[in-house]
Amino acid sequence: MSEDTPSLRQALAVPPGPVSLSGFDPGAKPLEPGDRHAHDDRLQDLQERLWAESTQGGRRRVLLVLQGMDTAGKGGVVKHAVGELGPIGVQYSAFKKPTEEELAHDFLWRIRKRLPEPGMIGVFDRSHYEDVLVVRVHDLVPQSEWEPRYDAINAFEQELVDDGTTIVKVFLNVSYDVQRERLLRRLRRPDKHWKFNPGDVDERALWDEYRVAYSAVLERCSTAAAPWYVVPADHKKYRNWAVAELLRETLVELAPAYPQPSIDIDAMRERLQPPH
Amino acid sequence: MSEDTPSLRQALAVPPGPVSLSGFDPGAKPLEPGDRHAHDDRLQDLQERLWAESTQGGRRRVLLVLQGMDTAGKGGVVKHAVGELGPIGVQYSAFKKPTEEELAHDFLWRIRKRLPEPGMIGVFDRSHYEDVLVVRVHDLVPQSEWEPRYDAINAFEQELVDDGTTIVKVFLNVSYDVQRERLLRRLRRPDKHWKFNPGDVDERALWDEYRVAYSAVLERCSTAAAPWYVVPADHKKYRNWAVAELLRETLVELAPAYPQPSIDIDAMRERLQPPH
Repeated sequence: MSEDTPSLRQALAVPPGPVSLSGFDPGAKPLEPGDRHAHDDRLQDLQERLWAESTQGGRRRVLLVLQGMDTAGKGGVVKHAVGELGPIGVQYSAFKKPTEEELAHDFLWRIRKRLPEPGMIGVFDRSHYEDVLVVRVHDLVPQSEWEPRYDAINAFEQELVDDGTTIVKVFLNVSYDVQRERLLRRLRRPDKHWKFNPGDVDERALWDEYRVAYSAVLERCSTAAAPWYVVPADHKKYRNWAVAELLRETLVELAPAYPQPSIDIDAMRERLQPPH
Repeated sequence: MSEDTPSLRQALAVPPGPVSLSGFDPGAKPLEPGDRHAHDDRLQDLQERLWAESTQGGRRRVLLVLQGMDTAGKGGVVKHAVGELGPIGVQYSAFKKPTEEELAHDFLWRIRKRLPEPGMIGVFDRSHYEDVLVVRVHDLVPQSEWEPRYDAINAFEQELVDDGTTIVKVFLNVSYDVQRERLLRRLRRPDKHWKFNPGDVDERALWDEYRVAYSAVLERCSTAAAPWYVVPADHKKYRNWAVAELLRETLVELAPAYPQPSIDIDAMRERLQPPH
């Protein structure tokens, strides 16, 4: 990517001010890829350097947060975009319906336990944002309880940023019609039935309520420290490329470098010379 | 792979009886791959089915244990063999020098915390075996303490097997000369210096002691429930292929299948028809 190329982060970041999801086209393809494979190699290389940095005390790390309606493609993104990174440097966490133990704690308790360590790329498949999404839509707690969570989330994320974490928050924006196509496709294929949760159809009936809840998240929690990116998700290939590219741009900016520990090279070489 | 093809597991499993590592050639390539790529696709597919099974209550899982001297290629195997599996179904754990907290507990305490959940493939980069390897070679605890660990490990692994875990234990067998070449190569490349630990040269000086300790592990802990495989590791490509193939054979034998939950397909399709 040359210096003149506009960044995908700029193109997809949520602008300040009031947010309505109707302003974001799920079928758009801003800044389409030229040569995808050149990018992939680079991503893995950058990640290794971030890890190498941490072995000498570096604190930096990346947290990728993935949110989206069912079928938006969180799994596909992990498989195709994150998958290129290799398993060593990636900590993947899926946040499902909270357990009894998790519910007995503050909503950030289970999140804190899964934060990536220095040098790692943490991937959250759903996240603390569910506590102002599904929780808000279904009135799982009263408004007096979820309302303060937006500020709590912003304070929490600022704390992570101050500790060396770069947060990349991605909303996978699928359209109502494409969701329908994808759910119908799962029904047509017996080997996909295990993925089909009848509850997904119930959630789909609350589409408009979720749009309102997502708009509030994007408006109130897209901060300078931790911006939200809206990735058009109707086209799978574009979606996967875009998330990989957001990660790549993030890592390029971090510019991790192989540390140069002081080793007495000659002494080491000498010790390795004698035959067995 | 046809039914007549001898399995790689049979070819690489440690035979019963007294074990001396001198009987295993680090440069061998038993059952070399014909078409590697056909195998890779299959591995990812099998893993997804194991995961799918667990979403409906299946308990089965796989634990890959990787051991070997420095430069034997544990990292390379994770990158190239395990990496093909994708990050969702893999739980990777590297066991380094134990912390104070870990040392305050039984040696299996930290191991139990990292065991794979149902449907997952756990990967241990080093493992509980370090407690009868580095610990034995360096006399970190008296023999009266490490000696009972072989039996404790066998009992522990039997417990895991009884709970639905298939254990694949791999010793990456690198030769003394190839280790030297690889360490010298790290010294020649400044971008590899961060990987170079002067302690590795100290460990190399204890090569014979480690061979004795590894032989004891292979002899005493290669059980019918959890056999050890000795993978020749002087040739990187062969080594990576062999570990992927051991996993593939294991998964083929488990034969995980997509569950067929009962869904009222017509009712679901009906509910998805109405336009927005």
